[in-house]
Amino acid sequence: MSAPSLSHLKEAVLQANLATVQHGLVIATFGNASGIDRDQGRVVIKPSGVPYDGMTADAMVVTDLEGQVLDNRLRPSSDLGTHLALYRAFPGIGAVIHTHSTFATIMAQAMAPIPCLGTTHADYFRGEIPVTRPLTPEEIAGDYVAATGAVIIETFADRDPLEVPAVLVAGHGPFVWGRTPDQAALNALILEEVARMAWHALMLRPDLPPIPAPLLDRHFLRKHGADATYGQPA
Amino acid sequence: MSAPSLSHLKEAVLQANLATVQHGLVIATFGNASGIDRDQGRVVIKPSGVPYDGMTADAMVVTDLEGQVLDNRLRPSSDLGTHLALYRAFPGIGAVIHTHSTFATIMAQAMAPIPCLGTTHADYFRGEIPVTRPLTPEEIAGDYVAATGAVIIETFADRDPLEVPAVLVAGHGPFVWGRTPDQAALNALILEEVARMAWHALMLRPDLPPIPAPLLDRHFLRKHGADATYGQPA
Amino acid sequence: MSAPSLSHLKEAVLQANLATVQHGLVIATFGNASGIDRDQGRVVIKPSGVPYDGMTADAMVVTDLEGQVLDNRLRPSSDLGTHLALYRAFPGIGAVIHTHSTFATIMAQAMAPIPCLGTTHADYFRGEIPVTRPLTPEEIAGDYVAATGAVIIETFADRDPLEVPAVLVAGHGPFVWGRTPDQAALNALILEEVARMAWHALMLRPDLPPIPAPLLDRHFLRKHGADATYGQPA
Amino acid sequence: MSAPSLSHLKEAVLQANLATVQHGLVIATFGNASGIDRDQGRVVIKPSGVPYDGMTADAMVVTDLEGQVLDNRLRPSSDLGTHLALYRAFPGIGAVIHTHSTFATIMAQAMAPIPCLGTTHADYFRGEIPVTRPLTPEEIAGDYVAATGAVIIETFADRDPLEVPAVLVAGHGPFVWGRTPDQAALNALILEEVARMAWHALMLRPDLPPIPAPLLDRHFLRKHGADATYGQPA
Repeated sequence: MSAPSLSHLKEAVLQANLATVQHGLVIATFGNASGIDRDQGRVVIKPSGVPYDGMTADAMVVTDLEGQVLDNRLRPSSDLGTHLALYRAFPGIGAVIHTHSTFATIMAQAMAPIPCLGTTHADYFRGEIPVTRPLTPEEIAGDYVAATGAVIIETFADRDPLEVPAVLVAGHGPFVWGRTPDQAALNALILEEVARMAWHALMLRPDLPPIPAPLLDRHFLRKHGADATYGQPA
Repeated sequence: MSAPSLSHLKEAVLQANLATVQHGLVIATFGNASGIDRDQGRVVIKPSGVPYDGMTADAMVVTDLEGQVLDNRLRPSSDLGTHLALYRAFPGIGAVIHTHSTFATIMAQAMAPIPCLGTTHADYFRGEIPVTRPLTPEEIAGDYVAATGAVIIETFADRDPLEVPAVLVAGHGPFVWGRTPDQAALNALILEEVARMAWHALMLRPDLPPIPAPLLDRHFLRKHGADATYGQPA
Repeated sequence: MSAPSLSHLKEAVLQANLATVQHGLVIATFGNASGIDRDQGRVVIKPSGVPYDGMTADAMVVTDLEGQVLDNRLRPSSDLGTHLALYRAFPGIGAVIHTHSTFATIMAQAMAPIPCLGTTHADYFRGEIPVTRPLTPEEIAGDYVAATGAVIIETFADRDPLEVPAVLVAGHGPFVWGRTPDQAALNALILEEVARMAWHALMLRPDLPPIPAPLLDRHFLRKHGADATYGQPA
Repeated sequence: MSAPSLSHLKEAVLQANLATVQHGLVIATFGNASGIDRDQGRVVIKPSGVPYDGMTADAMVVTDLEGQVLDNRLRPSSDLGTHLALYRAFPGIGAVIHTHSTFATIMAQAMAPIPCLGTTHADYFRGEIPVTRPLTPEEIAGDYVAATGAVIIETFADRDPLEVPAVLVAGHGPFVWGRTPDQAALNALILEEVARMAWHALMLRPDLPPIPAPLLDRHFLRKHGADATYGQPA
């Protein structure tokens, strides 16, 4: 019986969408969040261009991993193809969020990766948050949304997407992910804050180096992995 | 019977005025929004210097396209003459909004056009948002408010005002428009955000080029025009 | 019978104090607002170091123009001496407000006067908002609060305080005034906004010149003076 | 009978934790506040990784000065060891707060001490707010949290922690303290504001000198010490 599990996911995806608005990461209808049920092969995503006010879990659109809409009369987010590409390429992730949050987008526009300048960053991202290369005219003219997914995957050829759960798409904005919609929403919030801090720190001291690897690992690993000591025991 | 249609317009113009305040685009009484009923040749605009708090649709002032006040004892916004010039010159627009929103005004003060640095911009504005030339002492000494309209129209001699629905008046601030008061209010909000992003991106990387034309068109055209795919079918 | 008039003033001074907090110009207990009844020779000012939350009109302290406390058991604001100096030197003003609002204070710290870069500024201040010279060690060691007043007055030797109703005290922050507490509170809000705009515009374009005198006068005079056309007829 | 006094302290520590959130100094679960009862040798601190929403005084964790947890089943904040080191080294302090507040963290990332550029700073901090040296790889690999405390103490070898009640830990963020949780929370708020002001003032004028010593002392001493004149008599 799959219905209970999808309604739970729809609710979690709705909450992740609302969280991006509550945290000031989204204005107008710029963002979208999705989640996946790996067992059922089902993706749940925000509908396209629908106001956040009064949005319900039932308005979330369900598709399969190829983007076939399964149970909703609303169109899915126009960025669905990018979400699907990420779910297919990164098996460990359970949710994807796209926003145009101010400072992450500024860094994406400037094509400036976000170096790890402090422990705020290290607590959530194990190293630099990269920028994709710009898309080619051919990629833009073709299946643009899928190409956006492909260029993100290319950028992570030698990175672990669960250690650096975010990317800046050049000239566009951030995509963020996590094991759950909840975690992806938190990563989107932290990304915006570390982007804000990095912009200001680099303006004051353009040659600022990243923090040393031992400090980066100390912070990342106390919140993540088998030996995490942060928070309360499960 | 024209009354129903004008009360609808008055309500829409009131809401556009209130939206500029709710979105943080206006402090004190700096802004004004208007709308036009093209069939009746009637413009509805905010009264001058009246507090936003407790403002009602009935307080909106009705004029004809020459600025003759028709049914209200309140003075219209002191910028009425600029709104009228835009309605006469740009037949496709249905609403005009003027604000002194922070970053759009900063760019207007710096006389820096806002290049299209990302898809946030491209989704709403097809290319650079221009700055007018400064007014001459003669224009300032004469009918200053009408001259402000004229210099905007001059700036759009080779631009389509529905593709770039905003301008920065040098040393002053933004004028924004749209097909409806609702759309103009959304454009005013997006303009402020793209101005904020452009200021920060240009400070970090002063030589940053605009995004390539294919990406600009891809984004603009998926939200606008006959082949738009964004949002839900009408 | 003078009591009614002072209770009106106490209420207006309370509201001006609360407005500085509501407009985000004051954190902790950094600000103070006062008003004067010229006929009675009485100044009403915020008490020192009292929280804004739950502050009442009755908590306002009444003094004469020499700073003698007349009807309150609370100590007046520690900046009283500066307010009094301004009331004695500038006969046209009816209220004084001191804040440490963020951008006005930043400009005061940088000892950077705020040039008139746009009409937002020109609508309220007829030209540059000046910075005082730093106080000498002797002035600081002596009656520091009165010396702060004296250096403001010195800065206005060749300026009309009603045309430029604000000053930045070097290394300290802004003092703002107006004909009424209401108007002074509005000037304090606009000052912060024009300081924010000027900081950003000057960072982007350090050599930016002020707007031409005709535009400055056009805007200032449409809101001020005998020929003002802004707002509704009295 | 010690219980009443600890419940008072737990409540004060809870309020200090909540204040950091209300003042926008903390996002997610980045911050922690503690207080000490010197007579009983007991420290009360926020639990680790617990959401602020719905947090109660009873959730606060009690430890001794060696970090032994005494009466709570929740894990204490992972930064407890830093708090304890400060309590042992600085006998005059009664509360410690750690945040990643935006501008204080930006300065910590840029390893830029905050010079005293104005009276906003001087009212609460008698001179420059220092940055620690970076920790060595050995310190990071060892007892990292205690080493963070040790490097703060080293930085204050020639400073009075009650005259400069804050420090920026290089590449990390601020630690702030005070005689009481209330005072530490206020210092954390003021620190963020002076960091914001310093960043902006230094961007506009990189060579800006600190304010002269007499002005610094005049402001610091009117709010602190035996001759303080600010506020109401006790």
